[in-house]
Amino acid sequence: MFDSKNPQRTPISELGEFGLIDRLVKNAKSKLPNTAFAMGDDAGLIDQGEYFTAITTDLLVEGVHFDLSYMPLKHLGYKSVIVNLSDVYAMNGTAEHITVGIAVSNRFPVEAIEEVYEGIHLACEHYNVDLIGGDTTASSSGLMISITATGRVRKENATMRSGAKDNDLIVVSGDVGGAYMGLQILEREKQVFIENPDMQPELGGHEYILERQLKPEARKDIIDLLHKLEVQPTSMIDVSDGLSSEILHLSKASSHQFNIYENKIPIDPSIYALCEEFNLNTTTVGLNGGEDYELLFTIGIEDHDKIKANPNLSVIGYVKEGSGANLITRDDKVVELKAQGFKHHEG
Amino acid sequence: MFDSKNPQRTPISELGEFGLIDRLVKNAKSKLPNTAFAMGDDAGLIDQGEYFTAITTDLLVEGVHFDLSYMPLKHLGYKSVIVNLSDVYAMNGTAEHITVGIAVSNRFPVEAIEEVYEGIHLACEHYNVDLIGGDTTASSSGLMISITATGRVRKENATMRSGAKDNDLIVVSGDVGGAYMGLQILEREKQVFIENPDMQPELGGHEYILERQLKPEARKDIIDLLHKLEVQPTSMIDVSDGLSSEILHLSKASSHQFNIYENKIPIDPSIYALCEEFNLNTTTVGLNGGEDYELLFTIGIEDHDKIKANPNLSVIGYVKEGSGANLITRDDKVVELKAQGFKHHEG
Repeated sequence: MFDSKNPQRTPISELGEFGLIDRLVKNAKSKLPNTAFAMGDDAGLIDQGEYFTAITTDLLVEGVHFDLSYMPLKHLGYKSVIVNLSDVYAMNGTAEHITVGIAVSNRFPVEAIEEVYEGIHLACEHYNVDLIGGDTTASSSGLMISITATGRVRKENATMRSGAKDNDLIVVSGDVGGAYMGLQILEREKQVFIENPDMQPELGGHEYILERQLKPEARKDIIDLLHKLEVQPTSMIDVSDGLSSEILHLSKASSHQFNIYENKIPIDPSIYALCEEFNLNTTTVGLNGGEDYELLFTIGIEDHDKIKANPNLSVIGYVKEGSGANLITRDDKVVELKAQGFKHHEG
Repeated sequence: MFDSKNPQRTPISELGEFGLIDRLVKNAKSKLPNTAFAMGDDAGLIDQGEYFTAITTDLLVEGVHFDLSYMPLKHLGYKSVIVNLSDVYAMNGTAEHITVGIAVSNRFPVEAIEEVYEGIHLACEHYNVDLIGGDTTASSSGLMISITATGRVRKENATMRSGAKDNDLIVVSGDVGGAYMGLQILEREKQVFIENPDMQPELGGHEYILERQLKPEARKDIIDLLHKLEVQPTSMIDVSDGLSSEILHLSKASSHQFNIYENKIPIDPSIYALCEEFNLNTTTVGLNGGEDYELLFTIGIEDHDKIKANPNLSVIGYVKEGSGANLITRDDKVVELKAQGFKHHEG
């Protein structure tokens, strides 16, 4: 009935997710004195006087972010909370509250939504977070979960993406690539199941990576640890889209060059054999596999001693003046890291 | 692949939206000392020491809450902000920040999402609110907008649904039923258009109700006015699901009986003729038509003088001990008001 006055039609894929967001928010002007930081970091920051409130929203869409043929609903609820808390931790804060919006088609019975909520409540308990609001509505197809998390960040601790400086060390928690390989196993077994529904999925022996994909944890423990060690990161981001993509975010926001060593990327031993089986390059998986929800951060070189003995933290490289990011390979070649664009797990 | 352990399948329609929410949140236990109010009001409240932060999330789903054949994208962006700000005002607070989550299928070009954001930015400007975060993602079908609004509420002003008391007056701002009648006009013209795409829609003369549906406003002005008049409402809610439904919410939360007069329900004069044309009962439209985003509140009888001359406010009834809600008809019959259940505009 009403035709758009705008005749241009640029496909979203042409800009990519981050290009699109840049374009959408270029007209946003902050007007309020208590808007401490708006857009472009893991969370926005509201100045509450003595501290900041961090706030962040993430959507999980059926067929895009999850596939209910192998994602149990309770796990989905848990994960949908985790991915948001992870963004609050990435500001070096403490997550405290969430609101939950669920849109659900009538193919789901009440019991299915209850299972999602069981996972949500479990995550709230585990991370000491309170659920304080939400919305439940019909959808014309599929399931969509939108969660907003808020938390408290001490002003002196707030860590943006933009603070990395010359000679800082690049550190990542835990290991990377596991969630991606878990997804590969699930997708393979799904195909087997589609071809022969009587076959039981073969998931044995892959517990670690399956848990990385189906029930990831947010690294609250790392934030507590850094606090205890009195390490103030200079920049930080959570690893949701893949290590490579996050390194480029930090590099761009900090206007410095990031250099990482291929042989320092922490990858769980079980992944090596599996990568061979799937004919995948382990480094590519470590760099580009998303959804690990680890923390990637930089620290001043003077803090190295405080963290170097910790098995949960790996120093993977260093920051210097310049721009972009490089991978220093096992045979000492320097390869430029590239962004991956609009990447989604297809269901 | 993984069968649910729960064999029960209760259709959502059996519980209705509010019954479903009650069931989902019955296991939510607040653990944090700064959780001042969780679930069951227009917004949750976080204690920040000197004041509360109100936080609320609302979803708008294509085919459920809006129909893009007559909802311009810019208006949609505007409205999606308004419906959330309205919830913050309903706590007697000042909305300050929003985050925006958009899930969009690849049938939408970048320019379409930009139009949605134009409306979002416009609402932010109009209501002096800052956009401080968000998420943009693919969807497998259709458009979904999830907005979270936060705001500041002075502790002494915070107004819950639960504070109405004996002899309070029931007040509603503006008028009701307009947004619903606007929807009727749009649906009628859509049918005409489907049957004959060469016909131009006949929308002339219906500007007021079309604007009520397509570009509603949140009643920030009423909150400012009440503050200026030094009127502290005893309970408050925004009118999103229809006057009747909201009155029952206040009655239930306040554990008092609400009584309203049919001839006091504020209805725009243009709606009378239109109701006749559509063969609708004006009172039914005023009671059950949703999406007006007016404020419904109660005040102590001692405040009556302060508000009685204001053309933006109508006293429609009174509170007394008891339960439930009644309509006192033009011919002095007392009719019990009923909830409407899970009501959505079908696209």
